[in-house]
Amino acid sequence: MAMKRTASSLLRSVASIAASGSSLSSPSPLLARHLHASGGSKKIVGVFYKANEYASLNPNFVGCVEGALGIREWLESQGHQYIVTDDKEGPDSELEKHIPDLHVLISTPFHPAYVTAERIKKAKNLQLLLTAGIGSDHIDLNAAAAAGLTVAEVTGSNVVSVAEDELMRILILVRNFLPGYHQAISGEWNVAGIAHRAYDLEGKTVGTVGAGRIGRLLLQRLKPFNCNLLYHDRVKMSPELENQTGAKFEEDLDAMLPKCDIIVINTPLTDKTRGLFDKDRIAKCKKGVLIVNNARGAIMDTQAVVDASSSGHIAGYSGDVWYPQPAPKDHPWRYMPNHAMTPHISGTTIDAQLRYAAGTKDMLERYFKGEDFPAQNYIVKEGKLASQYL
Amino acid sequence: MAMKRTASSLLRSVASIAASGSSLSSPSPLLARHLHASGGSKKIVGVFYKANEYASLNPNFVGCVEGALGIREWLESQGHQYIVTDDKEGPDSELEKHIPDLHVLISTPFHPAYVTAERIKKAKNLQLLLTAGIGSDHIDLNAAAAAGLTVAEVTGSNVVSVAEDELMRILILVRNFLPGYHQAISGEWNVAGIAHRAYDLEGKTVGTVGAGRIGRLLLQRLKPFNCNLLYHDRVKMSPELENQTGAKFEEDLDAMLPKCDIIVINTPLTDKTRGLFDKDRIAKCKKGVLIVNNARGAIMDTQAVVDASSSGHIAGYSGDVWYPQPAPKDHPWRYMPNHAMTPHISGTTIDAQLRYAAGTKDMLERYFKGEDFPAQNYIVKEGKLASQYL
Repeated sequence: MAMKRTASSLLRSVASIAASGSSLSSPSPLLARHLHASGGSKKIVGVFYKANEYASLNPNFVGCVEGALGIREWLESQGHQYIVTDDKEGPDSELEKHIPDLHVLISTPFHPAYVTAERIKKAKNLQLLLTAGIGSDHIDLNAAAAAGLTVAEVTGSNVVSVAEDELMRILILVRNFLPGYHQAISGEWNVAGIAHRAYDLEGKTVGTVGAGRIGRLLLQRLKPFNCNLLYHDRVKMSPELENQTGAKFEEDLDAMLPKCDIIVINTPLTDKTRGLFDKDRIAKCKKGVLIVNNARGAIMDTQAVVDASSSGHIAGYSGDVWYPQPAPKDHPWRYMPNHAMTPHISGTTIDAQLRYAAGTKDMLERYFKGEDFPAQNYIVKEGKLASQYL
Repeated sequence: MAMKRTASSLLRSVASIAASGSSLSSPSPLLARHLHASGGSKKIVGVFYKANEYASLNPNFVGCVEGALGIREWLESQGHQYIVTDDKEGPDSELEKHIPDLHVLISTPFHPAYVTAERIKKAKNLQLLLTAGIGSDHIDLNAAAAAGLTVAEVTGSNVVSVAEDELMRILILVRNFLPGYHQAISGEWNVAGIAHRAYDLEGKTVGTVGAGRIGRLLLQRLKPFNCNLLYHDRVKMSPELENQTGAKFEEDLDAMLPKCDIIVINTPLTDKTRGLFDKDRIAKCKKGVLIVNNARGAIMDTQAVVDASSSGHIAGYSGDVWYPQPAPKDHPWRYMPNHAMTPHISGTTIDAQLRYAAGTKDMLERYFKGEDFPAQNYIVKEGKLASQYL
């Protein structure tokens, strides 16, 4: 594995760079990176959201700064240095201070430490970028690959969490929950104000853009609701899975969109999906479409979503992802009509935290021992991006 | 069928009263009722919620006063009188004015016309009470039975609607959706404030109190979430259905409650279930229990729910049913912590409205022709209550 300073791994890495078209005659950043790697004791930095008064309320709340994934004692007992912070932005941030000499950076999608090419350049000792959770788009993956870093996630750790949350958001929009809740807390009672646009999910057409791990779990959970299920993906699912979920493959995204009452985004953020739902693509959706996006905010054109929500072309938009994160106070999605937004939460339930903390610990253990990670965890390995990011 | 003035039906009714212990020697209210029944042209009164500015927004919005179930033209073309109102309370209400001479009263659970023994006594021409929807507890069923009235619902018309809504509410509570939504609309971003009590539904124990039509649909929809499913009911489900849902029968309600992370109420409001969840029974639930109740508000002791929500014994309560309805501005459930309440909406989605409007029309058609209703629709027939109300 690339970050172990052994001759064989170095050779493998070099070979991989050669295979991907780089030339050994130019100075290899990978080589440089490895020569700078430190010895047995590692400096590990974790960037998480801060819990403050909430930290002590739940002993399983390990995903925050205070919980520190529950691995501090273990790391320190092994002689490693472990710094944890939520202060991640700008030149004076705590994270920035440790960039020059950290070996491992643990980050999450919920409170993303944006790992830019500039930071990677500064981080001379950096070997490993671990995402506690799923989705490493806050990292400049091409720069990480070029620098010979390894990027890995805890694949699968929170896919159930996100799929459940998506189904909740579908129901909240279809059934027009929030106007009713507002009435309840404000002393009102006006059933018509809710009912005139409340529907059953049964019989509606739901299309998922992307049917990877999360999309498939969503389709399985949608099955008993008796919807028409469609999916668009790079690849067709196996006949078994198609049969199990009853979902139909739509090769052409733009042909699927006008059929859908509800669209769920389940694709990673890549160069190809950034801004995928711009004004033109949203216009291809059915008037009154409901959109759920727990994938990444930047897959949508921010203003196009606001405009379509204001015009009623989008009848409801719900998700927990924004760009940037934390979303500023004046982010327009906070104030557009018929939304059901939250901060980035779906993948960081207490159950998910316990799973991605365990997965992160497992990868650190393997890293210290020089062992490979589970294959599906790699996002960048030996200079190459995982297939979904290509 | 009891409300047709034929010798045979009258005889059947009389026989039924005799069988149920009444004596023919005392003046029979049923006999009196039938003698007072009018001829071919009927006066039909419908009590629905008013839509006002929302009425024109959706052509399928038939469940409101303005939509009048979409049967006005049809009824009037047959020579019947059809009066529709939302004004249902007190001696000066529109409903009260028509009580003395109406033949048929159509009401709904969403904006319930409370049909008391006193009103039944005044309604000398009344023959048929139709509930557009499910749940006829707003009618004094014993008084209706004693008066020889027929009470019928559109059984099945909105069971899917309610079951979907219950699953939405389970997810909203388990995943702690509302604090996140409040942050989104108020310009905040504090993931920890949500995450410290957000969980996956997977792996949790969900128990339904009542596994009739709605409870079973809920269990089917819960199946792919990989929960531990329990149900309490008067009767055990068939082995096929138990196998299909994976739900385990709990004969003793009080033995089931402490096992449940989430409790869903799916029992009709009857003399036996009124106040079923009082202080003592709530105390038997697990600390931190989540409760979903789309059945009837009066199944809960109002203050006991407030107290347990305030102490944290109930960690979340969500439902769309209250007592009375409309819930007054000062109903304490509007203001208790960790609730996700709405007005009574789950069974009156647009899809449900279309189904219960069609079912109501079907029963009126049969009533005019002197035909029986579908057997499962009867709540009171020939002086007898349906089994769930006994």
